[in-house]
Amino acid sequence: MTIMNDFPVLDELIALLERTPATLAALLDGLPEIWVTATEGDGTWSPFVVVGHLVHGERTDWIPRARHILAGDPRPFEAFDREAQFSESRDKSIGELLATFARARQENLETLRGFSLTSEDLGRRGLHPELGEVTLGQLLATWVVHDLDHVGQVARTMAKVNATTVGPWAAYLSILRDRVVP
Amino acid sequence: MTIMNDFPVLDELIALLERTPATLAALLDGLPEIWVTATEGDGTWSPFVVVGHLVHGERTDWIPRARHILAGDPRPFEAFDREAQFSESRDKSIGELLATFARARQENLETLRGFSLTSEDLGRRGLHPELGEVTLGQLLATWVVHDLDHVGQVARTMAKVNATTVGPWAAYLSILRDRVVP
Repeated sequence: MTIMNDFPVLDELIALLERTPATLAALLDGLPEIWVTATEGDGTWSPFVVVGHLVHGERTDWIPRARHILAGDPRPFEAFDREAQFSESRDKSIGELLATFARARQENLETLRGFSLTSEDLGRRGLHPELGEVTLGQLLATWVVHDLDHVGQVARTMAKVNATTVGPWAAYLSILRDRVVP
Repeated sequence: MTIMNDFPVLDELIALLERTPATLAALLDGLPEIWVTATEGDGTWSPFVVVGHLVHGERTDWIPRARHILAGDPRPFEAFDREAQFSESRDKSIGELLATFARARQENLETLRGFSLTSEDLGRRGLHPELGEVTLGQLLATWVVHDLDHVGQVARTMAKVNATTVGPWAAYLSILRDRVVP
C-alpha cells in the first residue's frame, strides 16, 4: 500500500474491494454443504455465517458511515449489529447470499466512486461509538482489512475440517493451530 | 468433512481442490502490484511467491507422491523443495503463474480421478522423508489443507498492508495480530 500522509490510496483499496465477492463465490458457490456449514467450534462462524455478515455490512456499515462522516454529523455512528446475519440469512442458500453480496458491493463501490473523494476528504472525522474519533480514510482501509480478515477466517475454518485426517502432516500445517478455540 | 474409517471423502476433497485456482485468480489477477508483492516482513512470502510455490507443488509433490504410494515404492518420497519458486517464478507475471497453476491443477485432478481410488487405496502407505509412515488418504487431505493454509496466508499478508492506516479499528481486526513476525 502506498501511504501518502497516512492515507490509503483509494484506487488500490477499490481494486481489492471489488474482488472479494468473486473470490468468495469461486471458493464457496456450489461447494458441498459440509464445508459451507463447518465452524471452528462453539460460538465460531461458518463460511455461511461469514457471508451473511458481509451482506449486513454492505447494508449498514461502510457506506452509511462514510455518508455520516461526509455529512459532518457530530453524533456517533449507529452501532453495528454483529449478530444480524443469524436472522437475516435464515432460509437463504449460500448461492443467494453470495449473489446478494456481489450486487450490494458493486452498488456500494459505485456510490464510493461517486463521492469523488479528495485527500482532504479522507482526513474528515467521525465518531465511532466505541473507538472514538476516526477518519474516513481509516474507515475505507478498515473495509478492506475486514474483507481479508473474513476471507482468512473462511480458509482457516475449512482447513480445520481435515485437522485430523491429515495425520502426521499436521506438524507442517500451521493454519490448524491458528485461533484454536479452547 | 464426513469421516469414514478416518479417511476423507474423495469427492469432497476434489470439490475444494478444483476451486483453489479460481479463488486465487479472482483475488489476485490484475490487482495492483503493491498487493501482490507485499510480505509480512523479512523471510515471509508475498502472494506472488505463494502462487509460485503452489505451481511447484502441482509438479513435484501431490500426484508424484500419490503415484509413489500406489506403486508400493518402499523408499521415502523425494524431499519437497520449499524454495524452488524463487528461481522458477523469475521473469513470470502473477497472471502467468495463476494460469499455469490452473492448468496444472486441472490435469492433476484428472489424473487423480483416473486412479479410481477405493477406500482400501486411501489406506495404502508411503514413507515421508521426515514424518515417517503416512497414508494416501492423509496425503490427499493434506493437499486440501495446504491450499487453504496458503489462501489464508495471502489474505493475512494483504491485510497487513493496511495495518496502520486502519487507525483505532486495528483493535477489532484480529488478522493483523496473527503470525506477527518478531
